[in-house]
Amino acid sequence: MRKQIALISMLLVSLLMAQSGPRQAYQFPDIPGYTTLLCDFHSHTVFSDGNVWPTERVSEAWQTGLDALAITDHIEYRPHKDDIVADHNRSFAIASQSLNDWPLLLIKGSEITRDLPVGHYNAIFLTDSNPLDVQNPMDAIKAAVAQGAFVFWNHPGWTQPETKAVWYPEQTQIYDKGWMNGMEIANDQEYYPEAFQWCLDKNITMLGNSDIHGPAIFPPGEHRNITLVFVEESSQKGIKDALFAGRTAVYAKNRLMGREVYLKPLYEKAILIKPAQDLTGQKVKFGIEIYNPLPFDIELTAAGSVPEVQFPEQIVLYSQRSVLLRIKVAKDKNLDGLILPFVVQNVLIAPGKGLDVGIKVN
Amino acid sequence: MRKQIALISMLLVSLLMAQSGPRQAYQFPDIPGYTTLLCDFHSHTVFSDGNVWPTERVSEAWQTGLDALAITDHIEYRPHKDDIVADHNRSFAIASQSLNDWPLLLIKGSEITRDLPVGHYNAIFLTDSNPLDVQNPMDAIKAAVAQGAFVFWNHPGWTQPETKAVWYPEQTQIYDKGWMNGMEIANDQEYYPEAFQWCLDKNITMLGNSDIHGPAIFPPGEHRNITLVFVEESSQKGIKDALFAGRTAVYAKNRLMGREVYLKPLYEKAILIKPAQDLTGQKVKFGIEIYNPLPFDIELTAAGSVPEVQFPEQIVLYSQRSVLLRIKVAKDKNLDGLILPFVVQNVLIAPGKGLDVGIKVN
Amino acid sequence: MRKQIALISMLLVSLLMAQSGPRQAYQFPDIPGYTTLLCDFHSHTVFSDGNVWPTERVSEAWQTGLDALAITDHIEYRPHKDDIVADHNRSFAIASQSLNDWPLLLIKGSEITRDLPVGHYNAIFLTDSNPLDVQNPMDAIKAAVAQGAFVFWNHPGWTQPETKAVWYPEQTQIYDKGWMNGMEIANDQEYYPEAFQWCLDKNITMLGNSDIHGPAIFPPGEHRNITLVFVEESSQKGIKDALFAGRTAVYAKNRLMGREVYLKPLYEKAILIKPAQDLTGQKVKFGIEIYNPLPFDIELTAAGSVPEVQFPEQIVLYSQRSVLLRIKVAKDKNLDGLILPFVVQNVLIAPGKGLDVGIKVN
Amino acid sequence: MRKQIALISMLLVSLLMAQSGPRQAYQFPDIPGYTTLLCDFHSHTVFSDGNVWPTERVSEAWQTGLDALAITDHIEYRPHKDDIVADHNRSFAIASQSLNDWPLLLIKGSEITRDLPVGHYNAIFLTDSNPLDVQNPMDAIKAAVAQGAFVFWNHPGWTQPETKAVWYPEQTQIYDKGWMNGMEIANDQEYYPEAFQWCLDKNITMLGNSDIHGPAIFPPGEHRNITLVFVEESSQKGIKDALFAGRTAVYAKNRLMGREVYLKPLYEKAILIKPAQDLTGQKVKFGIEIYNPLPFDIELTAAGSVPEVQFPEQIVLYSQRSVLLRIKVAKDKNLDGLILPFVVQNVLIAPGKGLDVGIKVN
Repeated sequence: MRKQIALISMLLVSLLMAQSGPRQAYQFPDIPGYTTLLCDFHSHTVFSDGNVWPTERVSEAWQTGLDALAITDHIEYRPHKDDIVADHNRSFAIASQSLNDWPLLLIKGSEITRDLPVGHYNAIFLTDSNPLDVQNPMDAIKAAVAQGAFVFWNHPGWTQPETKAVWYPEQTQIYDKGWMNGMEIANDQEYYPEAFQWCLDKNITMLGNSDIHGPAIFPPGEHRNITLVFVEESSQKGIKDALFAGRTAVYAKNRLMGREVYLKPLYEKAILIKPAQDLTGQKVKFGIEIYNPLPFDIELTAAGSVPEVQFPEQIVLYSQRSVLLRIKVAKDKNLDGLILPFVVQNVLIAPGKGLDVGIKVN
Repeated sequence: MRKQIALISMLLVSLLMAQSGPRQAYQFPDIPGYTTLLCDFHSHTVFSDGNVWPTERVSEAWQTGLDALAITDHIEYRPHKDDIVADHNRSFAIASQSLNDWPLLLIKGSEITRDLPVGHYNAIFLTDSNPLDVQNPMDAIKAAVAQGAFVFWNHPGWTQPETKAVWYPEQTQIYDKGWMNGMEIANDQEYYPEAFQWCLDKNITMLGNSDIHGPAIFPPGEHRNITLVFVEESSQKGIKDALFAGRTAVYAKNRLMGREVYLKPLYEKAILIKPAQDLTGQKVKFGIEIYNPLPFDIELTAAGSVPEVQFPEQIVLYSQRSVLLRIKVAKDKNLDGLILPFVVQNVLIAPGKGLDVGIKVN
Repeated sequence: MRKQIALISMLLVSLLMAQSGPRQAYQFPDIPGYTTLLCDFHSHTVFSDGNVWPTERVSEAWQTGLDALAITDHIEYRPHKDDIVADHNRSFAIASQSLNDWPLLLIKGSEITRDLPVGHYNAIFLTDSNPLDVQNPMDAIKAAVAQGAFVFWNHPGWTQPETKAVWYPEQTQIYDKGWMNGMEIANDQEYYPEAFQWCLDKNITMLGNSDIHGPAIFPPGEHRNITLVFVEESSQKGIKDALFAGRTAVYAKNRLMGREVYLKPLYEKAILIKPAQDLTGQKVKFGIEIYNPLPFDIELTAAGSVPEVQFPEQIVLYSQRSVLLRIKVAKDKNLDGLILPFVVQNVLIAPGKGLDVGIKVN
Repeated sequence: MRKQIALISMLLVSLLMAQSGPRQAYQFPDIPGYTTLLCDFHSHTVFSDGNVWPTERVSEAWQTGLDALAITDHIEYRPHKDDIVADHNRSFAIASQSLNDWPLLLIKGSEITRDLPVGHYNAIFLTDSNPLDVQNPMDAIKAAVAQGAFVFWNHPGWTQPETKAVWYPEQTQIYDKGWMNGMEIANDQEYYPEAFQWCLDKNITMLGNSDIHGPAIFPPGEHRNITLVFVEESSQKGIKDALFAGRTAVYAKNRLMGREVYLKPLYEKAILIKPAQDLTGQKVKFGIEIYNPLPFDIELTAAGSVPEVQFPEQIVLYSQRSVLLRIKVAKDKNLDGLILPFVVQNVLIAPGKGLDVGIKVN
């Protein structure tokens, strides 16, 4: 027994005293009035059908750049249960142990996992997951709501033909009760434009989550889905309030999606524009320098013309790089207040609709 | 119940019908008489103190380029045992289930985990891990040997000052009984030159393993430790025979280490040398083109001079690239059979001793 | 004066005795009956409007993986001529000096550079570029043809709306004289599907070139355009014969384009398929392992169904990686000779038409 | 003739209206009282022995992240002079033409290129390079000084055994006249610790330059040498004043080198330390989060112990990533004002001497 303790202590010391691995340092800015938190509200562990131990979810969340993570093991689907004997609260409890080591807001959740037409619903900010383990799906959601949980519909297009989201009468039922607080418009590799539109039309909070089962390994060019949450305070309460208020945006497949009211200030705060230094005569003098600190290349296309000014039809703002936007202006053109109109093709304020932005010339 | 089955079947279909993720395609060649297999004989799962489910070890092994993997959970150290109730054979049994999906030679093992001076020993090719769970470490090793296991000393310098390996009387005892069949000369981030020398002096098989606990994620420039095994047949038996015969080499920290008898033909088979096309006169005509298909940059330094020939003191053969080695030769020099002497600084045939190689000029 | 010589000799020695930088090692295979050479037949130096010295073109060509390069400075457009006083043969002559240092087939060419509707034509395998400097473009082409040159139409869609290639009467004139031996279907960032079709319909050799002006720097994910030439001998003559015989393919924007007669054997030689090891019963046993040594991800889509066999609709063969293609077969299905039909989406045998391939199951 | 103009104008329009390529966005911060400019004071073009046209130097300088570049073609060594007929002012004049397109401070310079023991000297901020073309090297330097130039000794260890810098009587002569305003302590791949010490001892401005001849292509992990200049105004005058005042630091081979008076505030401004959030009891609560925005991994080693506090011996602050520094503190330890002592191994304030820094715990 003493031997065991010596061994354990030896293992722990070497682990704890080492520094951590590196954390992905995203440069999403805060917006006026709100702090921007990077969140993922959908993840699994070995306690349902995931492939990692709960503490691994915490360390990898911090290292992949998250501020907050919800662990949401399935209530109904637990293929490892012959080996792992535990109630529905256990994976969160274990994950919580590693919060001494990693600065993360860890949110308690569960996934209510039923066949279509109900589908899967996540309930987060639970206090006790066990009451959700009931036969009737509506009873399960009701039990979550009774705890003050935030409930959202997962992957509305999953297993549907061409992953096109389908709204069944059951969704109307849940929505009408006020239980459909949010909806995933992106899940893992999938994106659901119909769900995006429903969120806008029906005032539902939009989310984009990883639904991660294996380790958080992403090939070059790919990234973990993130729900950006615009909070008044960096805490569980701050996130919960923001979710119920719909203050979110979704980063998935190197695109940002969300309501214009949040994406507009986020874009304008992030993208740094250094005005043209000299545009006299026909000659281009330098052009306009634009720096993109965000983790994805931003694609702009011209949205109209400006008299006596020529400028490119398309621009790519390379991630974490600057570019020069070169323009050509008639000799005596007054440049004061001149703004070039563009649409951001991969910052969407509705399905297929990019954000309108202007680039100030000087 | 029917619902559950529908759900499970739905999940499995979408998983199984997808293609796999990409596999790291190492270009280590076979050597005359033997096939080269890439192996890792030391890994952990949630069934001891690892952080991944056993099936994850199988899929990640194939994707990180391995041909064979041993799962070697600790017998004594099982910090998750309050949640996971299983005997010592269970993690291998679970991992085996995914062999329908992944072409891997999966080897059954266990880690006998004792405080120093005994330290940790892996036993692989076990048929039953449970008999190893006994009080006396020598009895545990004996039980493994009784099953025909290959037994090796893990990380001989771990927790020692400056990770310098120390050989205690207990090691002599194990060695003298014929039980120390192998020894790790590299484990995770550590390398033990003393262990390397002991392997050479005492005829012990040398191994380099990952001892992986978390997911197999490696930053750019780093890699999973691999034990190269030179087999007569690509099977469990082939590997076991090769291990007992000492036919291995170790790839760790972008170096190859092992016995000259295996590293020499491996290097010569791998590195492609295209002779100089014209060396008439004082002028360099092209030089010698050398292609390195191996996964690490190879560093060569000149090992002597050649009359009437000038050639660089140092060359780097970039991984999966060609370079030109430029030489300068006196006008009437006869080049037939001319060989330039080099030492490969990161292919070691003993601690601190690089492999001698010659580069044929034409 | 002696000082100058000492200095020069010092500079040269340190340069020449160093090894070269690394060469991109493409794994395009040879095809039955022919060796595959990687060529770029369109490049510029400071002697026209390029930005690098001719010798730089040679070293960068070798380092970017080419076997052959044509230097094709403009005859008519020489914006540096106030500073650089030379005839049209000079850039090739200077570049040739560095062939002592780099193993490259360097081809002498010129670009006849006229406004539309004639456009730009490259003539390669010239012996003297100066006779091409005449007023009438037809005379210039005629002078090239008189030297036995291979003449091809450059970037047929350049400066056209949406880069759509336009065939003017002037092209008919050149074609009818037998002077349009080849045509670029890809140039720099542009691709011309119309030109691709013309090559097929009119029996014109298809080419894809870099038209490089600055240094050969390519961002991650991009590459130099390459014309693959299938030669009977690795020499200037071998290339010239192959060009006149139309034995080429084009690698541009991570796609291969060309005639099926060459792309089919190239693909089949390159892609390594390791048959499924066990497909008994309903269970997938491993699946089919496929290795792609080519420098780009290959995209396959299913081209039909096979009775009693389920297999993925889409597969990505990651560049220089293996993947597993998982299939599901009825219990008693005879697998002998079973072939799964796919189309390679980014290996094109006509505009918009992928190569048909079959994947053997065992 | 009209055709020619049409052609040229067509080429220019397509060039100018495109956006620029991406610029490397270094995150070196300003320091109190000074703006930090990134400069390279040593480069060549085809007008001496370089391989690129002068305008290429301008575009690549901006794209590789520079604020200022000096073009410093050799006075004496012009191997291309048979083809390029120009005086010593011409390369700068041509490069200046592209300043309409690229926002760069372009500095006029020349390299006085003599055999040892004099060696090579750069003179920058020249108004006319031609007077430097005289027989006696001292006369050349004198002519530069007469124009108010800043003169510095290039690569003091070049062609010396093991690149060890040697100070000859000629250097004393130049230094005593007040003409050795600066000295390269790093040039291309070389670093000269002796020169670093001379700069400190003799009050000479230290510089680190690329001495670039070919295009600015750097393999992964390597970078262009940069002289950081701490200016009062972002202009040619600002740089010149700063150079004469010695306000520089050198970024070479992923190390920063310079005087402590500049490196200390630069480091402290750059590295963001987020205090430990809870250190009560024996348990580590999160640890200290440290973000490194600089372009290289920073290596810290502990420089002493702190009573009742355990902390790692070594830390790596990964470039553009955060890490957690984990510490262990006795239960009742007062943490107010507690500072952990470290040495930055790759930020050098003298040869072999790292910068001392403290990490505040809360």
